[in-house]
Amino acid sequence: MYDNFKFSITFLRNGYRRGIIATPHGIIETPAFIFCGTKASVKGISPWQLAETGTSIILSNTYHLFAHPGSEHIKNRGGLHKFMGWNGPMLTDSGGFQIFSLGHGSVADEIKGRRCGSSTLLSIDEDGAVFKSYWDGGKQLLTPEKSMQAQRDLGADLVVAFDECTPFHSDKKYTEQSMERSHRWEKRSLEEFARCDDGTQAIYGIVQGGVHADLRKRSAEFVSEHPFFATAIGGTLGSNKTQMMEVVEMAMNGLDKSRPIHLLGIGGICDIFQGIALGIDTFDCVHPTRIARHGGALVKAKYRDSSQREHINLKRSQYKNDDSPLEPDCDCPSCKIFSRAYLHYLLKANELLALQAIAVHNIRFMNRLMEHIRSSMENGTLNEIKEIWC
Amino acid sequence: MYDNFKFSITFLRNGYRRGIIATPHGIIETPAFIFCGTKASVKGISPWQLAETGTSIILSNTYHLFAHPGSEHIKNRGGLHKFMGWNGPMLTDSGGFQIFSLGHGSVADEIKGRRCGSSTLLSIDEDGAVFKSYWDGGKQLLTPEKSMQAQRDLGADLVVAFDECTPFHSDKKYTEQSMERSHRWEKRSLEEFARCDDGTQAIYGIVQGGVHADLRKRSAEFVSEHPFFATAIGGTLGSNKTQMMEVVEMAMNGLDKSRPIHLLGIGGICDIFQGIALGIDTFDCVHPTRIARHGGALVKAKYRDSSQREHINLKRSQYKNDDSPLEPDCDCPSCKIFSRAYLHYLLKANELLALQAIAVHNIRFMNRLMEHIRSSMENGTLNEIKEIWC
Repeated sequence: MYDNFKFSITFLRNGYRRGIIATPHGIIETPAFIFCGTKASVKGISPWQLAETGTSIILSNTYHLFAHPGSEHIKNRGGLHKFMGWNGPMLTDSGGFQIFSLGHGSVADEIKGRRCGSSTLLSIDEDGAVFKSYWDGGKQLLTPEKSMQAQRDLGADLVVAFDECTPFHSDKKYTEQSMERSHRWEKRSLEEFARCDDGTQAIYGIVQGGVHADLRKRSAEFVSEHPFFATAIGGTLGSNKTQMMEVVEMAMNGLDKSRPIHLLGIGGICDIFQGIALGIDTFDCVHPTRIARHGGALVKAKYRDSSQREHINLKRSQYKNDDSPLEPDCDCPSCKIFSRAYLHYLLKANELLALQAIAVHNIRFMNRLMEHIRSSMENGTLNEIKEIWC
Repeated sequence: MYDNFKFSITFLRNGYRRGIIATPHGIIETPAFIFCGTKASVKGISPWQLAETGTSIILSNTYHLFAHPGSEHIKNRGGLHKFMGWNGPMLTDSGGFQIFSLGHGSVADEIKGRRCGSSTLLSIDEDGAVFKSYWDGGKQLLTPEKSMQAQRDLGADLVVAFDECTPFHSDKKYTEQSMERSHRWEKRSLEEFARCDDGTQAIYGIVQGGVHADLRKRSAEFVSEHPFFATAIGGTLGSNKTQMMEVVEMAMNGLDKSRPIHLLGIGGICDIFQGIALGIDTFDCVHPTRIARHGGALVKAKYRDSSQREHINLKRSQYKNDDSPLEPDCDCPSCKIFSRAYLHYLLKANELLALQAIAVHNIRFMNRLMEHIRSSMENGTLNEIKEIWC
């Protein structure tokens, strides 16, 4: 397995590292950020804009595509790469995360431990999970085998084993039982993956175990003992930033460090710096493109007030007459051409272009951040550049 | 006046012609299509995408920008070119058309003689028109002088005299009175234009007169006798395609043909061919970008069923499994990368990218159409290529 994939660690110091993940659709220099193209499209952004802004990898969500248009439909169209016109590395998740978190509020609520409402999950047993389709309300069953088949149909380079994303508010007993079932599901995922392996894909195992050090360690060891290509740290990461990093550290303890390590659903700038310090290689989050749709532009610390957290809200009246670009030193087309005043106006006028222009900047911002992080490692300036970006 | 502007007719045969309009922001090869960036943005399309798809000129609407964010705000931002990041030729209309047609249904209803509902127009007298702002419901007054000042603030290369867009259902008596007032308003526009002329702008006069041959002739003569740089044919063009071209012909009769001639609000492919045969140089319409937002893609005759009129509706289920591009011979990025099946899926999934992808194609389609029309003139193949496009 994994003949067409390779992970090379090219630099290592104090636990943080640079590397290269080679896939059949190209390489990913790590640390890297993976942009969310949830429903086979990074919202409002074309594949050529992604490429022009230095994006190396995107992901799509199996849950969404399974419900509509169906993974088989995409297979019949030549697979997800061809269907959506993205020819670079791609990852699909297993669908588990959305089944267990959608309907509980935002998908981020789960990871971040916020309390949730009603669920789209109808039942869960040893076989898999039955849920209500977001698309047509119909009942759908996802099992480890079905998830792997769907991901095979989609054809992303990197796929993820099917697990239960245990809610934050579960007690330790449920978290342990859920983790053990996730381990059995991951084994079944791996078996199904191996059964149909044709060399085009590589699979991630997922570490669960909630906020409990012993469970996280057991889960990390489970994943490391099985022949996954890479590891993702999933499930709840606690209710605050400090706990988040404690939980990541717990999971890292038992992990095989020769494999790529992905931290699921985390995309805050400070969080990324903390994750990198712990040895995380890749991150994903809807954050950069989602905030763009609400007028949020990511800017470095010196381009915002100290009261603003990692981004500025362009809808605020303070930008009405601001003729400066989002960031004077950014090389994205939006910064080269548009002022904050114009973007403010577009948002007020409900003009579609605002969303695209800000998303293009935010994507370029994240890619420049990761470029800067990678180049700073060998210089030993990771802590210094954190001040610039956070 | 007009030292920085020039119109050269480079080819003339049987009444149709090629030419070049030179402006301070570059040249427009005619016949040309002018894309609508109503509120200082071609909906969902960035200025660099416009340039990449061969666009030579866009327009913005004074009515919309006057209400929000205000022409003075845009002046303070450095003018419309700088504000919206479009560095090529640009036209603004006078605001008159929207005052008299918005609230009557779509802005196109007026030209095309469809009956209308309530109006945003509150009153009209010799001074100008009082209307209700679409932005905040406040009362606003637009006069010839105010329109010219607003257009001066906006700073487009080409500006248009303020007129009343006489409704189709007016009787001849009202149409004549309205036309005469429009003539007085156009004279005042020209005086106000000359008073502040700094060489950066050139002004169009507008021919009114409804569907009445004698009135159209008088109006064309009025415009031709006054030192406008160019002429626009405005007002109602009747209730059907045949009448539309009859009315255009009436207006053309009395016109000074050494000036550029624009046909306001017309963008159907067959209509463009008919207009060109009568000697029209430029056209504008929201059509190509508006239909894109509803899933309508412009394709040449051989790429659609004979039942479809000039465009295909990608929402239709017949495109679900259609792996071909919108047009196999189109060089736009959407046609190079996306299939009809993917665009169909994006529309069904309400993904923003659909609108942008189809609009990019439609803009390129219109620009390729105009390129083909220009090159066919000297070959004498204008009638033959009409079969390809219509």
